[in-house]
Formats: sequence, structure tokens, C-alpha cells
Amino acid sequence: MSLMVTGATLIDGVREHPIAGHAVWIEDGRIKAILSEGEVGAVEAARHIDARGKFLIPGLMNANVHLLGDARLEILARYGERFDELILEAAQVALKNGLTTVFDTWGPRRFLMSVRDKINQGTAIGSRIFCAGNIVGFDGPFSPDFYPKAAAVASPAFVSRINAIWTENVGRHLMWRTPEQVATEVRSYISRGIDFLKYGSNDHFPGSFLAFSEQVQAAIVAEARRAGLTAQAHTMSVEGLRVAIEAGSDLIQHANITGPAAIPAETLALMAKRQVGAVIFTVTECGLEWLATQASEQVRTSWRCMDINARNLIGSGAPLLFANDGGLFAPELSSDRAHTDFWNAICGDRGGGMYNLAEGHFSWFVAMEEKGCAPLQMLRAATCNIARAYGKDQELGTLEPGKIADMLILERNPLERAANYRSIATIIKNGEVVDTASLPTKPIFTAPMEIAPDEEARHIGFFSGATFPLCPSCRARCL
Amino acid sequence: MSLMVTGATLIDGVREHPIAGHAVWIEDGRIKAILSEGEVGAVEAARHIDARGKFLIPGLMNANVHLLGDARLEILARYGERFDELILEAAQVALKNGLTTVFDTWGPRRFLMSVRDKINQGTAIGSRIFCAGNIVGFDGPFSPDFYPKAAAVASPAFVSRINAIWTENVGRHLMWRTPEQVATEVRSYISRGIDFLKYGSNDHFPGSFLAFSEQVQAAIVAEARRAGLTAQAHTMSVEGLRVAIEAGSDLIQHANITGPAAIPAETLALMAKRQVGAVIFTVTECGLEWLATQASEQVRTSWRCMDINARNLIGSGAPLLFANDGGLFAPELSSDRAHTDFWNAICGDRGGGMYNLAEGHFSWFVAMEEKGCAPLQMLRAATCNIARAYGKDQELGTLEPGKIADMLILERNPLERAANYRSIATIIKNGEVVDTASLPTKPIFTAPMEIAPDEEARHIGFFSGATFPLCPSCRARCL
Amino acid sequence: MSLMVTGATLIDGVREHPIAGHAVWIEDGRIKAILSEGEVGAVEAARHIDARGKFLIPGLMNANVHLLGDARLEILARYGERFDELILEAAQVALKNGLTTVFDTWGPRRFLMSVRDKINQGTAIGSRIFCAGNIVGFDGPFSPDFYPKAAAVASPAFVSRINAIWTENVGRHLMWRTPEQVATEVRSYISRGIDFLKYGSNDHFPGSFLAFSEQVQAAIVAEARRAGLTAQAHTMSVEGLRVAIEAGSDLIQHANITGPAAIPAETLALMAKRQVGAVIFTVTECGLEWLATQASEQVRTSWRCMDINARNLIGSGAPLLFANDGGLFAPELSSDRAHTDFWNAICGDRGGGMYNLAEGHFSWFVAMEEKGCAPLQMLRAATCNIARAYGKDQELGTLEPGKIADMLILERNPLERAANYRSIATIIKNGEVVDTASLPTKPIFTAPMEIAPDEEARHIGFFSGATFPLCPSCRARCL
Amino acid sequence: MSLMVTGATLIDGVREHPIAGHAVWIEDGRIKAILSEGEVGAVEAARHIDARGKFLIPGLMNANVHLLGDARLEILARYGERFDELILEAAQVALKNGLTTVFDTWGPRRFLMSVRDKINQGTAIGSRIFCAGNIVGFDGPFSPDFYPKAAAVASPAFVSRINAIWTENVGRHLMWRTPEQVATEVRSYISRGIDFLKYGSNDHFPGSFLAFSEQVQAAIVAEARRAGLTAQAHTMSVEGLRVAIEAGSDLIQHANITGPAAIPAETLALMAKRQVGAVIFTVTECGLEWLATQASEQVRTSWRCMDINARNLIGSGAPLLFANDGGLFAPELSSDRAHTDFWNAICGDRGGGMYNLAEGHFSWFVAMEEKGCAPLQMLRAATCNIARAYGKDQELGTLEPGKIADMLILERNPLERAANYRSIATIIKNGEVVDTASLPTKPIFTAPMEIAPDEEARHIGFFSGATFPLCPSCRARCL
Repeated sequence: MSLMVTGATLIDGVREHPIAGHAVWIEDGRIKAILSEGEVGAVEAARHIDARGKFLIPGLMNANVHLLGDARLEILARYGERFDELILEAAQVALKNGLTTVFDTWGPRRFLMSVRDKINQGTAIGSRIFCAGNIVGFDGPFSPDFYPKAAAVASPAFVSRINAIWTENVGRHLMWRTPEQVATEVRSYISRGIDFLKYGSNDHFPGSFLAFSEQVQAAIVAEARRAGLTAQAHTMSVEGLRVAIEAGSDLIQHANITGPAAIPAETLALMAKRQVGAVIFTVTECGLEWLATQASEQVRTSWRCMDINARNLIGSGAPLLFANDGGLFAPELSSDRAHTDFWNAICGDRGGGMYNLAEGHFSWFVAMEEKGCAPLQMLRAATCNIARAYGKDQELGTLEPGKIADMLILERNPLERAANYRSIATIIKNGEVVDTASLPTKPIFTAPMEIAPDEEARHIGFFSGATFPLCPSCRARCL
Repeated sequence: MSLMVTGATLIDGVREHPIAGHAVWIEDGRIKAILSEGEVGAVEAARHIDARGKFLIPGLMNANVHLLGDARLEILARYGERFDELILEAAQVALKNGLTTVFDTWGPRRFLMSVRDKINQGTAIGSRIFCAGNIVGFDGPFSPDFYPKAAAVASPAFVSRINAIWTENVGRHLMWRTPEQVATEVRSYISRGIDFLKYGSNDHFPGSFLAFSEQVQAAIVAEARRAGLTAQAHTMSVEGLRVAIEAGSDLIQHANITGPAAIPAETLALMAKRQVGAVIFTVTECGLEWLATQASEQVRTSWRCMDINARNLIGSGAPLLFANDGGLFAPELSSDRAHTDFWNAICGDRGGGMYNLAEGHFSWFVAMEEKGCAPLQMLRAATCNIARAYGKDQELGTLEPGKIADMLILERNPLERAANYRSIATIIKNGEVVDTASLPTKPIFTAPMEIAPDEEARHIGFFSGATFPLCPSCRARCL
Repeated sequence: MSLMVTGATLIDGVREHPIAGHAVWIEDGRIKAILSEGEVGAVEAARHIDARGKFLIPGLMNANVHLLGDARLEILARYGERFDELILEAAQVALKNGLTTVFDTWGPRRFLMSVRDKINQGTAIGSRIFCAGNIVGFDGPFSPDFYPKAAAVASPAFVSRINAIWTENVGRHLMWRTPEQVATEVRSYISRGIDFLKYGSNDHFPGSFLAFSEQVQAAIVAEARRAGLTAQAHTMSVEGLRVAIEAGSDLIQHANITGPAAIPAETLALMAKRQVGAVIFTVTECGLEWLATQASEQVRTSWRCMDINARNLIGSGAPLLFANDGGLFAPELSSDRAHTDFWNAICGDRGGGMYNLAEGHFSWFVAMEEKGCAPLQMLRAATCNIARAYGKDQELGTLEPGKIADMLILERNPLERAANYRSIATIIKNGEVVDTASLPTKPIFTAPMEIAPDEEARHIGFFSGATFPLCPSCRARCL
Repeated sequence: MSLMVTGATLIDGVREHPIAGHAVWIEDGRIKAILSEGEVGAVEAARHIDARGKFLIPGLMNANVHLLGDARLEILARYGERFDELILEAAQVALKNGLTTVFDTWGPRRFLMSVRDKINQGTAIGSRIFCAGNIVGFDGPFSPDFYPKAAAVASPAFVSRINAIWTENVGRHLMWRTPEQVATEVRSYISRGIDFLKYGSNDHFPGSFLAFSEQVQAAIVAEARRAGLTAQAHTMSVEGLRVAIEAGSDLIQHANITGPAAIPAETLALMAKRQVGAVIFTVTECGLEWLATQASEQVRTSWRCMDINARNLIGSGAPLLFANDGGLFAPELSSDRAHTDFWNAICGDRGGGMYNLAEGHFSWFVAMEEKGCAPLQMLRAATCNIARAYGKDQELGTLEPGKIADMLILERNPLERAANYRSIATIIKNGEVVDTASLPTKPIFTAPMEIAPDEEARHIGFFSGATFPLCPSCRARCL
């Protein structure tokens, strides 16, 4: 099928400036050519889109999502045989919001690959998925790396089953092994069909430890290279970051998160020199202001460093990458006031915010604009930089002839104002216009919660006088 | 349809001795007549069962089951919309093992009533169910009364929804109320269609507290009476037991469990005088012996008192009732060694044991025989005594003309040896032979666990050196 | 020694109105006579106090203190052999603030009696102490009744030793016993020399359970009567209150605390009819307003009921008693912002507040004034009503000839404004002027915390990225 | 003062074989000369010890003790101002059992240095102490590195004070820092007067993480070198071990503990090449056999690897060092059956065992003998190897003229049978005979527990029916 998009201002991700008066000709899912107005008439396209006054940009990408990000006990028990449905719903929410490609950096490999393949084969619709499966060195959802309390409640057999699905043979136990032993396990894991490799340079909690020595990290990266995959590291501290770069990582997840210390200049220089992809997680000014009023001095310091790092990375020369751990969450969680209050405060007037797969990229653009990031640098951070860091730039990331036809038509100019990224008129993926109204096709997390029958809705929960403050030492009991 | 059972020795639950040479004639689900051999020829029955050399007894009953007894977080999350399937499976396992009627004394009212009604209407097969719904004064599965840790892991909305399903308006908050206020709520709860009323005289954990004053208990019992229902109490201490009897309870759940103190003679006498149904939970000698080697002195004392109470109740004159909290459990739980080791030790050579819906009644007969309970007293404890205590003796509990035709044909004489109850040849419920081979029709908890794919099965869990004893104070950390 | 106080307006607790122009003549620690101005000259007193323009009232009493109220693990470990020092310090702080008599209703019997006796013998100075030792039915500090987490941290031998010191033979295990068995243990406990008996009608946490049946409660009260002691109950719910009254309790601790339900009119009437002492715990309006903005609906409801009950008790005809669980707390606790923020909000501009042994009575008068309690009713609630409820009114509670000479000279009229109770000029106990400047003689909890050496003061605590919110499900981990 | 020890077989730690017929002449605390029998007569010594038939060896050393090893909440609260007394008691117990020098590798610096100095100045008696203070990178007793639950029970101010005493400026927060920043803090810590430097290469729990990158470790070691101190690392994994060696550590604490993986041959070779001191923690065969019956496969694997590593290190060429985390423990802990059962099983017929400061070295010799370690290699592991690894071999570790006169006279030959180390006849430290009968001079942990008064001793603890197994799901609640 062929498609011709005419009249739009073209922001192709390659040129330093937008160009007007050109059309994009799409054939068989790829960009056949960029035509001048005069050339359009000579082409017979099955469908025409008149985009006069609008703006055409490459499809957006997210360098770090978790399509099955809500890995809490009640969710994994409830949807034990339906993980693929949850993953597909998330991929559809992503696509509906302009993300034509997403990189899943932690999740259940078997189910992620299954949905990935269905979308690639055209038997399901959704954002294009590339996935890593497990983070090498991390253990499963019901381990100390994620929700350790689950193991105190669930049966050992269930805990073990879930952890095995996520972890397979590349979990935390590798930390006890030599470089050669780790390499052998990683090779076996890669052979199962993942798209890229992710490992922990730092641990997940508290984040200050190193999961692997530099020598082990180098061995892991070498295995990815041998298989033709990119390698990336999860880092949380200045040393975790430095070691991962020196070990050869292609990109760094949340490079700007380094706890209560800022990235040293030498490390910034090294990232630029090696052109390591620097994923930035960020929040807007209003969020930072609110955070400054919260929590302990150490937490505040960490948020401040996260911002300083982001600003320094903008000017560092390292390629920036947009990502946000984007995922969907069960309505029981996403409607819980303990969460909504927090996220509303962080994200300002728009709900959802930072880690919301449907919203986070829009917030990110606004936040980076506030920090002084140049408009084109931002666009590239969410398109061609990601494609390049993941080794997918032959096919994706810019509007160039020969590339896969993933693009967005925006009502307003995104280079003028970051908020304009929200003005999506049309989404084209694989050369086809996406029917966004139909997505997600089977709402689960995006469906409303069931209403309880009347006799249950009137339930009064138990009340404990222990919550009724009696004296300082009784309070001490409850604190 | 009509059915004629001939040739069996008849143990009808009424006569003090078995009688031979009689047939039981069943019509339209009820016992039409007990015929002498000579009379049989005059009747034309659609079906004949030749039970020569065998023994015919009333269908067994269990005065305390929890058809949805595995109310842990992972189960309620996984089967959130399928509680009825779990309940039906349990009712079928009960029936398959000779329990033609069960009394569910704690569970989700709405779902229990739904399965009860389907079985009564003949649209599903299973043991006949009478149910109480919630125990008045107890809160839901994710409350301090059952699995409080679940509330630390699950989302508040889910915790609340589950607790509301079990508790509705008769939860723990009633303990803060006056007798009149409690009565009003109980009346409303009864009106939803439960078969009998159960309330807590003692709390669930630790079991030594009183949930309601005697005056509140009397008000609760009065509401049951007003609605024509029987009332029963959950008791755990000698005072909880005494107060419940004085408040007018018709039967007492686990009357022999009174913690580390034995029931006083006056209380035993009162039970006999008022003919309060005394439910006995018990274990065999081999289990008691093993228990004597375990745990603290206080726990051992409690088990000893439980046995002393059972023996004293046998001779007290109070009607004994068989029950065992029988339920089914997910294979992840029932195959967990922490459980199986315990139950195998308690129950001797046969797996399953005391609280197993499929097995517990057989163990119970053996245990009571060991304590010197007379054979007929045992039979009645599992049949007509239960029917009478629950006010169902017009219809159930003995083999008498006019009663519903629930009965078992045994290969061997149960009055000779308690173990002979296991020799079930044929189960007749509602006058129809049960096709036990087909039960349960849809195995869930009785189905085997799924096999993991190879790459998951080889998973090595995380290992913490913290479990590796280094020094006494490090050990203190872990103890 | 003799002492003459002249010139003060006399508020003796007996007359309905203050009288002027009288002197109080004290001999050998007792009030010898109330003299008219003319009579004073005839008496030769060793010491004269000119109290012109001032106000003379009976010494204040507190019907519920815990002289060793900070029973947390770190305190009991630190002061393991010095409990008497902590108790004495508290008794001195009480005396210094106008409380000439206090009733300790929960604490380590052996140590309390030791300090009590020293003060009575004159070898130590402090508020006059009457003590109950343990609350019958409650277990020790490291039990579920108080700080259960301590048992997870401390060595079993230490946990057991502490619980034994507080509990001896009248702990929670009595709930498993019959009325006769409980009575026997209580009799033995009384014989060790306590001044009055306290038992739990409700449990401590959650407070909605009954600890003892009415029959057991009656047996406990009967033992107190037999020994000539008063009996009191700890109640937390409307039924716990009613049962305790019917069982014969002389006074009720925190009668106005009944959880989320208000005391029914019948119970109020019964309290008046039997003249049961109604201890009221209360907070000022500003505290109630702040509370209304906090916590859950159920907690708010409970605070509201606490206020409604207090107001209803004022007009009920039952004798009101002042008390507040007053105690001292280690500076580590009393300076902890989690506490100070709470108590400052509750208690308005004055620190300390409700449960502070040094301050709480002053707040109480203000709060009761706000609720419309008559000035003389308030005075009596803190003097003669307490004496009468505890059976000490032959000796204490009013300014009458023959009574022990405990009294306060105030600068301003307490009947005019409740805040004037703070204007203490002179404290007389046992007929002697208290040297308040010297109290406490050996500050422990009232001493400042030690200053750390410089290298320790600059310590930076560990920081966990886990407190650094990354995504909603990570947050779920930490909530 | 001078002392002459004559007649003993001399095992001086230098020669490969014992020599007979020599005397040791001690003057002013040092070995003046080793004399032949003929030379003895020419010397006038103040005191003579006739050691005919006995064996003279250098004083034993322990390369890893924690003189204040029981750092649990109840202990630190109880002895908050008396840490020096506990440390001194431990130093005296060590000396009494033949350890003339101990190296404290984790404890409260300020108190350890104070006791160290008193012993060195002769104002207190005890084993010679060298101390590191904190382990760089580890946090205090009430942190996740040791007893995290304490922080949930104790007041924040107390938690913080204790953690500051142990940690000062070199705690876990350094993991967030760059190499330069860490070096600066370490320099400042060294300047306070510690004897050697210890840091974490691995974390404490779970032990598989790296605390510092190789570059940070090298910076830490460089600071020790600059100050003339030795540097050592705490390692727990094969990579933690390798990185520490490559970073330049002089000795490795518990080199043979590497979790469930054995040390690779290359790492063993590197240890030998660099002559890195290899501390070995070990247990006897009977302990290993018992352990093989316990716990999970992973724990068993770890114990097996610990043994394999020990055997491989014996033949590796690296200098072996004896150590055992030796400490004293409060009687509440050391008499707790949960501990004693474990340690008795591990240590065979002698109580105390592996981590007991008084006993552990004797067990260690037996265990190493079982593994085939040569007698002289064992002796050196507990004497001159330790001295050399800590840079103290100019003064300590062998019986050579000029060295400090620390030595033991044994009844039986330790080179014949390892058990003979127990046969201590005389302990000489600093040239003086130790009066072992007087040690410890002020027993605290070695004193018996106080006896409770009768009324407390008869205390019956609370009993929870929750420990009374009712049904599988109730059991699930408690597991």
C-alpha cells in the first residue's frame, strides 16, 4: 500500500532546520522518497493525507519502558496466564500516544518476545517492541531487588515460579561467579532471542553497591558484542556509572541518577568521547520545587544532583536519550491517593506524569526545555539518538528514504514549544495510519474498577484503637 | 426416579442396633419405605442395587467446613472472579468422599449461596451446602483476624474489596457497638439468605479475648431465633465457651479447644443440660505423641487440654458433632514441605489428615475410637446429631421414611472398626447414585501444578550470605 | 513542726464558695484547724506564710499516672537496675508541678512500692504514691499489649525477664482461666502490698475486645473488696465500660474513650446511680480542631466521640476524675519531631501537653472549662473526687481539720479562670513547704542529651536510593 | 625486671624444628637473648621459671576479633557509657586463653583506642590491642549492615548516636562518592589514631555486592600506605576477593569465604605471588558433617566451598592467618538455646567454638590439622604470619632477641597434636607472667545472669492460640 503525506513542514531529524514544501511518499511500509511539491503529481498513491499547516516528525521512541511494570503480587497472581494481554495493552497505549517504538528493559522475556513477534507479524497492533528480558544480575519481582515482602506472604512455590519467569539463568546468583562463569550464562540467555542486553552495574536497592566488578562487566559486554547486540547498564552511583562506561556499555540507563553526588567532569567527558547514550530521567521545575520541601536532606540532595547531572549532560557532547521507566499500573494502584498525591505534586497540572507510559514523554520535553535543551537536541533524544544507541538507525529514527515509515503529524510546531508535542493529529507506523480510537483493544489496566454490590460497598473496615494516639510511648509503638 | 437398595445391613442412625434383611425404597429423592425382604418384590423400582454383605448408613455430614478455605492473597487475586468454581470443586471433593451435606461456617456469602443454589436446583453436582457467610464480629481475610501481612503487600483498594466481600456489614467494627446496634446489623445480614448464624464468642487470634459481651451475644442469638435460624459460636477459651452457652448458642464450634485450660465440670454439665451441640476437633494418638515432642510447654499443654476435653465431652451427655474446618488448598500450599511435614507427623501414615476435606472425617473416626467413643455415638456425631443441632433433622441425618435419601453403602462394618468408614462402595445423594469418578468436574486445586519451561526450571534463586552463619550476633540478626 | 498560712482566700473543696479571712493551722503534717483572723494570734506556729491576695486549694491529684511510662526497649535495657531512680524523678516532677498525690496505674510493682515507701518514710521527697502494679490481664512491656516489636529484637531471656517484672502472676494468661482460678491469682498478687487493684475490661490493642467476661470481672472485684482495696477497670469500648460498671468497678479509667461509638444514656445513668468515678482524658478545642484534619474517618470519629462522652459525663451526675496517663519520657523520644509535631498541634502553644506529667493537668483544666464544666466541679475532679474514688477521703482531698496537710497557694483565683491553676506560688505537702527549686534531685529524663564528640557529630547516615522514588511500583515497595 | 625461662623445648617460630637445651632471657619486657644451658648461670635474673618437659611458643595472636562484638540494641543501650569495660573484659578473656595480641577489626574506635592505650600504658591488663575502628564503607550497628530491626524499635536519636559512634565519617555513604572524595575521608579517619585500615570490598549482607570499585579500593589502600598503615579488605565473593587483591590489600579477612563458588586457581596464585595474608575461618569435620544435614542446598554449597577454599589455601603458598571474629556475648544470648544448639552441633563436644574468643583458636587448630595443614604452618598462622601481615614483625610474632617477650609455656607439644595448644601452663606478656586466675577482673558478660525474685520467676508468659495450629491456611499465617 502506498501513502502520500503532503503539505507538512518536515522535521526529519537529519537536517538542522525544518523544511517546507515537501511531501513524504511511503510504499510498503517504508519511506520511498521525499518529494518536492512538483514531484508529487507524478506519483500515484493509494491514499493521500493533506497536512498543510502541520508538522511531520519521526515517530517517537522511549528508550526505557516496562510494558509489564506493575509486577506486584496481586497483579502477577491475578494475571498469571495473561501477561501477554497486559503487555499488549501497554504497547497499544504507547502507540496511541505517539511512541511508535519502545525498548523494554526489564520484564518476562518469554511473554515480551511473544507480543513483540505478534506485532511484528501484523497479527496484533501496538508499538514496535525491542526487549532485553531480565536485567543480568537482578533477581525476580519477589526478590530483595523488587518486592521482598511478597515472599513473606506468598507460597514458596509461587514465589519461585515468578522469580524464575523473570530471571531464568541470569539472576542475582551470578554475582557470586567469576567473569568466565557469568559470560557462559549470558551467552545462553542471549541465544533465546532477546534484542539487546541489559545488566546491573549498580544494584537496584539501595543502589550504591556495585553488582559486578569491571572485569565481569567487560565480559558481559563482550558477550553482547559477540552476538551483535548492544549492551546497556543500570547505574545509580558515580562509580557505577564510570565503571559501566569503561566496561564498554553502549548506553546508560538513567545516567543522571547518581544518588547524592554529581557526576564528575571526567566522567562526563568520557561519555562524550565514547558517544555513550545518556538516558535522562527528569521532572519539571514545579516538581523539583515541591520535592525541595519534602523528605530528608539526603533525598533532597539526590533530586538536586539528578537535576544538575541532567543540565551537565545537555552540554556534555554525549548523545541524550529520552526514557522514563514508562509503564501501566492497575487502577487499584494508580488511583491510590498515596500515589496520586505524590505524582500530582511532582508533575504539576497534568496527571500521570513522569513514569506514565501515556504521558511521560510529554512531561519530559517540557522539563528539558526548562533546563535549556535545544529543540532539535530534544527531538533527536526521542528519535534518532535512541535508534543509534540501540543500533537500529539503519531502519528507524529519522525521515529518510529507505527507512521504516514511522512518523507523527503534529498540529503545532514542536521546535517552537515543547508542549506542542502533545498536538498529535495522526500517527503513522509501518507506513499505515494508526486507528488510535480503537486502542487499547482490550482494556485491562485502563478499564475502570468493578463496582461492588451494595451490601459490600457499605462495609465498615475494622478499627484499631492502636491508631488512636494515647500517650507518647503508645505512639512510639505505632511509629 | 425410584431406586431399591437390597441386602445390606442397615445402620439407620435411629435404632440402637443394625438390622439385616431389609431394603430401602427410594422415590423422588426421598426414602419411601424400609421394606422387609418379603415386601421388596411388590415394588417396581427403576433401579436396583444389590448390597448383600455390605452396610448402609446415612450420608455423612461435616459440621464445619470452609469450601473456600485457602483465602491467602495469591489465591484471592488469582481466582478473583472464580470463587464459585473453587467452592464447587470443594463441594464435589466432599461428596466424592461420602459427605453428602456440609455446613460452611466462614466464607464469601454471595458466592457460597450461588453454588448452594445451583446444587439445590440440580444445575451442579456437589455436597449439599448450608452456609453462614461471615462469622459475625470477624473481619475479612486481609485483616488481623486472618492474614494481616497481606495488607502490607496488596493495594488498599484490593484489600478493602476482599474484606468487604467476606465481611459486609457484620465485621469486627461491631465490637465497638451496643447490643441494640449489633442486633440491627445482624438482622440485616440474615435477611440476605444465609442458612444459619455464626458469631465469635472469642476472637480468632490469639483466641483468649472475648469478642462480645454476654449481653451482645444474647442479642445476636435472639436475632437468629427471630429468623428461625440456629445460632452457633466460635469459642477458644473456657470463658468464651461458658458465655456462649449461657447466651443460648445451639452449637459450639470446636468446643474442645479451650487453650491451656480444661473445661470445668459445671460447663460440661451445662452443655448436657441444654443439649448444646459440641463440635469436637481431634487428632489421633500418633499425632498427639508427635506433638508432645514439639513446641513450647504452653502449646503442648493446649494440645493436651484439647484431648482431655474431647474425652470428657464423650461422657458428658452433650451431643457430639464431627467437624474439622475441612477445606481444599492450592497445590503450592499443600505440597509445601513446611506443611506436609507437619501434617504427615500429625496424621500418621495417611496424607491429608485433620483439616483435609477429603480425608479428615476418616481420621476423626479413628481418633475418637482411640478415645473410647462408642461406635454408634460416632456415627451419630457425623449424621443425625449434626442435623439436629442445625435444625435440619426433619429432612436429614437418619434413614427413615420421608427423609431425603442421602446414604452410603460401605463394604465393611463401620461399627466394628472405625477405619471401615473408608470402605465406601456407593454414594447416594437425593436418591441418586453419585458418579464419583467424574468428580471434581473441573479440577483447580486438585489439578497438578503447571510444569515450567526448561529455561525457567533451571533458575537458581538468589543467595544471601546472611543465611550463612558467621557469628553469634550475626545469627541474632537473622533469628 | 507547725505552720500557719494566713490571708489567703480559702477554697477548701467542701464549701460551695470560697471564704476569705481565715487561716490554716498545720501541726505535725495535718490540718489542726481552720481559724478566723481573730483566732490566729492565739496560736504559736513555727512558721508563718503570708498569703494575702492569694488562693489556697487542696493539693492536686492525678488519678492515672505511669511514673515509669517510657517502657521502650532502649530505656528498660539502659536503666535495668535503676527503675527506682526514674520513678523517683517522675514523682518529683509531679510534686514540683502541684500534684501532691499520684495514683500509678501500671508499672513495675516492686520498684514502685520501694519508691512509695521511701517517700512515705521521708527518706525521699516526691509526690505521694499509691500504686496498682500490673493491670490484671495485661502482659509486660515486650508483649503484644505494649511493644511487640521489642521481642523481635531483644534476646528471649531479656524479654522474659522484663515481662515478668511487670506482670508477675497476673498477666494475659489469666484470660484462659475460669473465674475461680483468676480470683486465686489476684488474691496472691494483692497480698504483695499494692494500694488498689486495676484490671482490663477491654484489651489494650485494638481495644475493642473484652479481656474478661463479666463473671470473671466480678470475681476480680470481689478479691479487691475482700482485701479492702478499691477496684478499677481499663475500658475502651461501650460494652467494656458497661460490663465493668456492672461488675462493680469503683472507678473507670478513661471512661470517655469508647472508640467510634458514644456512651449510651443508660450507661451514663448507671454510672451516676452507682457513683462510679469517671476518669476523663481530654484535649483542648485547638487540639480537636487539628485532629479533625487528620487521619482516617474512623480515627476522627473516635476523637469526636471522646469529646461527646466528656461533655455528657459532665452533666451525668457521675463524679468526674482528672487523669492523663502522665509520665516522663526520655529526651530521645520527647525531642523527636514525629512526637513533638503531633503534641504541639494537639496542645496548642504550650509544649508538653496532654500526657506530660508536668503539664497535662493544666491543659486538662483549660479543656474542661471549654466544655462548660463548672469551676468547682473541676477542682473536685482533681482533688476530693479522686480521694473518694480511691477510698482515701478520710485523709486526703479537702482542706478540713484532721486531714493531711497537702495544699497549694496560687497567685490567682482558679475558679475565675482555669488557666490560673498554673500560678502556683507555694506547694505544701505533709505540712511542709516543698523546695521546688531542688526538684528533681537527680535529673535523668529531664537532663539534656549528651553532646557527641565532633567526629561523631559530623556523621552522615546511610542513604538508600530506595527512598528515592523511581516509579509507582517502586514506590509501592516502600509504602 | 628480668625473667629466665629454662628447660623448655623452644618452638621459636623461626627455625623449622624445635630446639632443646636453651633458655630464654627476658629483660624489660623484651627477649634479651636465647641462651644455651651453659650460659644461663652467668645471668642474674629476678625470676626463674623451670619449664623442663614443657614447650615454649610465641604468644598467640588473633587476626580478627571484635572485642565489642555483641552490638545488639539491648547491649548498647544497657552499657552505653561502659563500652570500655566490655572491651577490657574481652581483652582479658583473650589474654587468659593465650592470645597475647589481638587485632580488632570492627568496633567503636574511641573506646577501643582508650582501652588499647590503658593496656599499653600498663594501667590495665589485657591482650595487646591493635584496632581499625570502623570498616570503611560499612555503617553502624543499627543500619542495614548489622541489625536493621533495631532502627524500627529504638528512637531515631539513639539509633543515630550509636551509628555515629561506630561509623564517624567513613560509613556507607562513601559508596556514593568518587575515589578522590573517599580518599579524603579516609585520610581524616586515619589521622585519629587507628592502627590499621579495614574496608569493605564486598558488602556485609548479602555479601555478593561490591562495596567499592577497584579504583576506589586502590585509593583507600593508597591512603593507608601514605600513613604507614597496612590495609585489609572484608571479602565475601570470588570477585570481591580478586578485586581487593588487585587493589593492593595486605591481608584478606576470611579469604576462604566466597559464598557458593570456590576461589579460582588464578586468584590463589595471585595471593601467593603478592604474599597477601589469607585469613581462614574454619570449622571441624564434625561441624561440617552436621551442616551437611542442614539448611538449603545453597547454604550447604557455601559451607562446602568454604572448606574447599581452606584446603586450597593451605597449599597455595599464600601466608595463612588465624582469625575467627572472636568476641564475647551477653549471657542472655550465649545461653539461648537457639544459639547453643547450633554452636554445639558445629563445634562438637566443646562448647563455645568457632566464634568464641576464649575457645575459637583451639578449635581452629584442630580443624586445620584435620585438613592436613602442617604443624609449623599452623603455629605461624597464629603468630608470625599475623605479625608480618600487620607490619608488626619487628616486634612481635617470634621468639627472637630484641622482640617483645610474649610467649606461652605449654604442657604438651603443639606440633605433635593440635589439641595440645590447650595445655597452657604459663602466659608471659611483655615479659611478665600473667595472673590468669584474676582475669577478667570485672566480669560482665562472663558473670552469671541475675536470679529473679520468686514472684517474677513464676511468671507465665502470654499464650497465643495463633501458635496452636488449626488449619493449613492458619499455619500459612504464622509461617
